Amino acid sequence: MTRLLCIGGSDGGISAGLRARELDASVEVTVMLADAYPNFSICGIPYYVSGDVADWHDLAHRSRADLESLGIGLLTDTTARRIDVATHRVTATDAAGREQTVGYDRLVVATGAVPARPPIAGLERLGPTDGVHLLHTMGDTHAVMDSLTTRQPERAVIVGAGYIGLEMAEALAARGLAVTVLEALPHVLPTLDGPLGDLVAGELAAHDVEVHTATTVTAIAADGRGLTVHAAPTGSDPNAAPLELHAEIVLVVTGVRPDTTLARAAGLPVTQKGAIEVDRHMATGLPDVLAAGDCVVTHHVLLGETYLPLGTTAHKQGRIAGENALGGVRRFEGSLGTQVVKVFDLVAARTGIRDHEAVPAGYEPRTVAAAGDDHKAYYPGATTVHVRTTGDLTTGRLLGVQMVGSIGSAVHKRIDTAATAIYAGLGVDQLSDLDLSYTPPLGSPWDVLQAAAQRWSAVATPVGGDHHGSAARSRQG
Amino acid sequence: MTRLLCIGGSDGGISAGLRARELDASVEVTVMLADAYPNFSICGIPYYVSGDVADWHDLAHRSRADLESLGIGLLTDTTARRIDVATHRVTATDAAGREQTVGYDRLVVATGAVPARPPIAGLERLGPTDGVHLLHTMGDTHAVMDSLTTRQPERAVIVGAGYIGLEMAEALAARGLAVTVLEALPHVLPTLDGPLGDLVAGELAAHDVEVHTATTVTAIAADGRGLTVHAAPTGSDPNAAPLELHAEIVLVVTGVRPDTTLARAAGLPVTQKGAIEVDRHMATGLPDVLAAGDCVVTHHVLLGETYLPLGTTAHKQGRIAGENALGGVRRFEGSLGTQVVKVFDLVAARTGIRDHEAVPAGYEPRTVAAAGDDHKAYYPGATTVHVRTTGDLTTGRLLGVQMVGSIGSAVHKRIDTAATAIYAGLGVDQLSDLDLSYTPPLGSPWDVLQAAAQRWSAVATPVGGDHHGSAARSRQG
Repeated sequence: MTRLLCIGGSDGGISAGLRARELDASVEVTVMLADAYPNFSICGIPYYVSGDVADWHDLAHRSRADLESLGIGLLTDTTARRIDVATHRVTATDAAGREQTVGYDRLVVATGAVPARPPIAGLERLGPTDGVHLLHTMGDTHAVMDSLTTRQPERAVIVGAGYIGLEMAEALAARGLAVTVLEALPHVLPTLDGPLGDLVAGELAAHDVEVHTATTVTAIAADGRGLTVHAAPTGSDPNAAPLELHAEIVLVVTGVRPDTTLARAAGLPVTQKGAIEVDRHMATGLPDVLAAGDCVVTHHVLLGETYLPLGTTAHKQGRIAGENALGGVRRFEGSLGTQVVKVFDLVAARTGIRDHEAVPAGYEPRTVAAAGDDHKAYYPGATTVHVRTTGDLTTGRLLGVQMVGSIGSAVHKRIDTAATAIYAGLGVDQLSDLDLSYTPPLGSPWDVLQAAAQRWSAVATPVGGDHHGSAARSRQG
Repeated sequence: MTRLLCIGGSDGGISAGLRARELDASVEVTVMLADAYPNFSICGIPYYVSGDVADWHDLAHRSRADLESLGIGLLTDTTARRIDVATHRVTATDAAGREQTVGYDRLVVATGAVPARPPIAGLERLGPTDGVHLLHTMGDTHAVMDSLTTRQPERAVIVGAGYIGLEMAEALAARGLAVTVLEALPHVLPTLDGPLGDLVAGELAAHDVEVHTATTVTAIAADGRGLTVHAAPTGSDPNAAPLELHAEIVLVVTGVRPDTTLARAAGLPVTQKGAIEVDRHMATGLPDVLAAGDCVVTHHVLLGETYLPLGTTAHKQGRIAGENALGGVRRFEGSLGTQVVKVFDLVAARTGIRDHEAVPAGYEPRTVAAAGDDHKAYYPGATTVHVRTTGDLTTGRLLGVQMVGSIGSAVHKRIDTAATAIYAGLGVDQLSDLDLSYTPPLGSPWDVLQAAAQRWSAVATPVGGDHHGSAARSRQG
């Protein structure tokens, strides 16, 4: 093994290359990427748009020079066109269309994802020059910034109230635009339960972001004066009125799908959802070809095989692919879909699964709401943390936790305790056994996560009497 | 079982009573306490002294009325004098010296701890009226506040640079006093490794708190003008000079020891260190007598039986004692000595054990230092989190983590992830498998805890090749 080639210059591909070099400095690592932006932090785009990050170069996790000093050879603006598994060669074209062929001993396919294009009339004809943007790459980012500069928009419509949609709503509001967010589902941040999504919606409203949920965008039209977005109530409520919004810039951010055109052509197996099939070791089944990141299936700790593209997961999978490309046997232990988002002064986070995800997987979930102070109320500045705890009634196992709290309430790291507990297979009841830290300015003797767990145990009626540590409760009612 | 009596009105006793009532509202719960302050948050005292908490009543976790509404009968200003285990009766005296006898079906002894009195010449003769204070109870607190009001001190000396010593240093500095802290050991916050203690010392110095470490207080003397504190270098350095400090108030805060006079007289077994022997179910071995909190031994997840008085532990043990008093079988799963302290704008935290604790317990520890940003550096306000990771070279198991970072860096909840991982028996290497949350304003794709774990794995050479997930590394060097 002397040559490792990674196709894709984002988290998966770069992590694979870095790990390989860390383990064996004699390996020749090449990362091939279609654009000029290796190792950029895509999650940071909203903060460049908002102005928090002044220079887009700073969004790079590592500069080109950093990467090269770590032994990563870069082929930028180079699009992989064909993988020849039999001969261990990848054919690619550069920006000028010139073809080149790169040989490898091991290959990591990390082609990532592409933005979903929802079925919106007009979307296929409109693009950045009209002020209509998808947003996934640094190229997309430059196009958005160009629209903001040249069009000087006063009104923005964002289609999709997921993580990126809400972050971009905050970013554009910070630039002084009047922002409207449209979400087809009944609540913003649909990856959280409705009551928590509604708290986030309240925060958006408090910052003058207009939100329409249960509203499906049907068409976008451009004329000389700007853009018109047509939307209709999701579903078939005959009394609900359609909506017509005017804006100078429209962002369509409704999720992604795996980018696997190259992989399919090479014969790599893909799932129904289009993600590359990999095993827990990130092997594809084809000789010497591994894959990682947003283009592959995700092993979920509680759900098994799914598709759940996240930067953190791509880093892990890439690192494992890099290790195993060198003969390692490291296993991807699985995602919990842990996510966090800052929306103005609120932070919303989740880990694990919710009822509607748990039921099809064979669990008997019960979700219990609770709320408590982030720290002792007598110390100034205490705020409320809202928690939803999901446990399995049959086994008592902790399945998921969702939280919303103020930006100072450490919700982002409190969720990590829950993620660690789920990873370790702990029961809801066992959260009370955890020796968590306490000082009055920063916490409570029972962390709000533990108080929420105790609430769950008090409310949720176990089916069996087999919960860890709950024998006394079962017996005593 | 109809009558539960708890001796002690702090975390252990109150938690026991509350849990019993939660499980069975027919139980008659009485909490007997020697002072008038049931369920007070002793950890909050520094924030009352600093002025952050204006009214000392607010330091109560629950008011007297709250407790009574939850079914807790309170016998305040009532000192238990004798437990008669055979007849299930406790004899007590009230403030006027009147004796009364209270019967019980189950008893929870939660008499807590008393402040240690270090061997300082003069300390036995001096007290609050001289401006010399121990600090452990609300009564002590009122005495300190009285000294601050009546003596109007300009200079304070604090003996002991542990958690309470440093919190009080901050509190008195906030009141405008010139504060000097004396610590017999070589670093402040001796429960952390020296390099982290030194960061805390730097924070104290930056806020004009004078610190002398490796300095043992030998005598305190009072005269008409104030107090003189005499100290000498700890150990026997012949070149080190003795120290003489003048102040109007002196706090001696050098730890606590279990308060078990009552328990011993009743025949409860105590350890060499003087703590009541209890099993994992908080049973004392005497019929119908349980014990919890700062007066009992602490089961430590990694060390077994030890003595480690902490409010969080007292809450847990009390809750378990209350449950088991009603026939439950809940087990105390153990402490990890998780602690956190805010010192001005820094937060220092630890969980698990350090090298010098691990070696006598049979581990082969290695501690590796690392540092990283609390969130992506491109987003404004990133600060450095310093981490020391301790793992067992033989098994790869995570044994301990220590952290110091700015108050906004969520060190207090990052340590909880480590505490959860140690509780679950995870290896250092497994920290990289955890699906922790990430968004650029609040974190990194690899949390600093994970980056520190990767540093540990890269640096620490395993004795065997048996680390979880490290097969590839062992093979590839």
